[in-house]
Amino acid sequence: MSLNVTVIGLGSMGYGMALSCLRAGYRVLGQDVAPERAAQFVSDGGVAEPMDNPDAVVVVVLNAQQTESVLFGADGAVPHLRKGTVVISCATVPPDFAREMEQRCAEHGVYYLDAPISGGSVKAAAGKLSVMASGNAEAFSAAEPILDATAETVFRLGDAAGAGSAMKAVNQLLAGVHIAAMAEAMTFGMTQGITPQRFLDVISKCAGTSWMLENRAPHIVAGDYTPHSQVNIWPKDLGIVLDTAEATGFDAPITQAALGQYRKAVEIGLGHEDDAAVAKVYAHASGLDLPGEDA
Amino acid sequence: MSLNVTVIGLGSMGYGMALSCLRAGYRVLGQDVAPERAAQFVSDGGVAEPMDNPDAVVVVVLNAQQTESVLFGADGAVPHLRKGTVVISCATVPPDFAREMEQRCAEHGVYYLDAPISGGSVKAAAGKLSVMASGNAEAFSAAEPILDATAETVFRLGDAAGAGSAMKAVNQLLAGVHIAAMAEAMTFGMTQGITPQRFLDVISKCAGTSWMLENRAPHIVAGDYTPHSQVNIWPKDLGIVLDTAEATGFDAPITQAALGQYRKAVEIGLGHEDDAAVAKVYAHASGLDLPGEDA
Repeated sequence: MSLNVTVIGLGSMGYGMALSCLRAGYRVLGQDVAPERAAQFVSDGGVAEPMDNPDAVVVVVLNAQQTESVLFGADGAVPHLRKGTVVISCATVPPDFAREMEQRCAEHGVYYLDAPISGGSVKAAAGKLSVMASGNAEAFSAAEPILDATAETVFRLGDAAGAGSAMKAVNQLLAGVHIAAMAEAMTFGMTQGITPQRFLDVISKCAGTSWMLENRAPHIVAGDYTPHSQVNIWPKDLGIVLDTAEATGFDAPITQAALGQYRKAVEIGLGHEDDAAVAKVYAHASGLDLPGEDA
Repeated sequence: MSLNVTVIGLGSMGYGMALSCLRAGYRVLGQDVAPERAAQFVSDGGVAEPMDNPDAVVVVVLNAQQTESVLFGADGAVPHLRKGTVVISCATVPPDFAREMEQRCAEHGVYYLDAPISGGSVKAAAGKLSVMASGNAEAFSAAEPILDATAETVFRLGDAAGAGSAMKAVNQLLAGVHIAAMAEAMTFGMTQGITPQRFLDVISKCAGTSWMLENRAPHIVAGDYTPHSQVNIWPKDLGIVLDTAEATGFDAPITQAALGQYRKAVEIGLGHEDDAAVAKVYAHASGLDLPGEDA
């Protein structure tokens, strides 16, 4: 099938998804606020000229504000789309925002798939993301070739926008808490003479392990904070969780505590480091030397 | 090898370890404050008469206070042991307490293995526990036949008591936080229309998963709070973590938040339920009906 696809947002996730669409044989226009990324994508095979009638618009920007802007802002895409086009919205956003976008797209005859993604940049480049998707049957049907090209697992979570973003928020609650809890446990262990390497060796085989522990603790052991996923993600995503929770009077004290640690990490200048750097908040507070810091 | 073993504490973990020792061909005396459990163990093959010179004493009681009492209290075992006997201490206790016990045992010529266990009652009965062990070479050597009979994995964590208990505290920090975070995320999801079953189906395959989530979330989905591991464990074990942390000025805010939720669970009468019942704290606070509660 020949398909015209616009991908808005060529960060590590969006770039990988755009490449996956190219590999599937689609014509793909990549757009980004950074002109050098858009130019790079053209050199990788993306189309160079504007695309009049895309079949699908994949939005892989940072947050709700950027999503609203690229869809309905001054140069927003949606008013120019023909009826039946699908917007596949991949940013982590509040469920209510997803419902609002679905409705505003519908006013233009455009379908909206609430489709937050997870898996990281490596899986994005390999076309093996997980997608937590919800939307009406027409949105799923129109999005199917894009999902086939970019995702290994598509969770179909309901026939209206909001459910996908709600599940993403649930996942982010746990992922964010688990990274910070790993940092808390590892540095607590250091106060008792347990090295980060020993912590990883033992706890990854015990009931205290988590997906995030096994993924992030090696970064601390290696002293490598190359940002696969930045600290800055977590004040945003846990903020969405807590705003959404607050709207229904739900109290989430563990999420609150984890958010507090990420905010401290941002305050001491770690926002652009890998999120495992939240361990430095604990280490600095207790005078511990993490690997790579005691040289 | 014929070996004489005394197992003190025939709860689900101790009983399983005692049975594993029987299966290895050892003579095993089981002791418990509940006479019916000791009698049951005799009917399962344990020796009926007092044992004068055990080669090893395995202590599988609830906490430090009980450990101190059975070793050095009014009828304490250690003063009556011959030199070279090993005490294998399996309760979750503060690292400093383990160091103190090692020293007091040494004054009687008795070896002490700091050997907290994990794995649950099923693995205890199968002789497949994990043991986080530390102690001197003599203690390890004397304990080896018991470890062979009861454990699948022995982490050798150092040549002095304290390291085993420290690693156990690190593991309990994470395990306790992960159970409560799972409850927080699952009930938050319910406020957004996500059923517990759907939560389990999706999140167990995503980056938000943990060993504890996969083990305990099914209890909530099934509405089954049969206590495989009781809520009451967590105020005790997270209390050890926080007392140990406080002694070195280490701040553990996520552990604090999780402990608060377990304390609330105890306050509303859930102490003897399965620890997944911490979800009821969230559900009651938000007027949610967990599975099995809305009948």
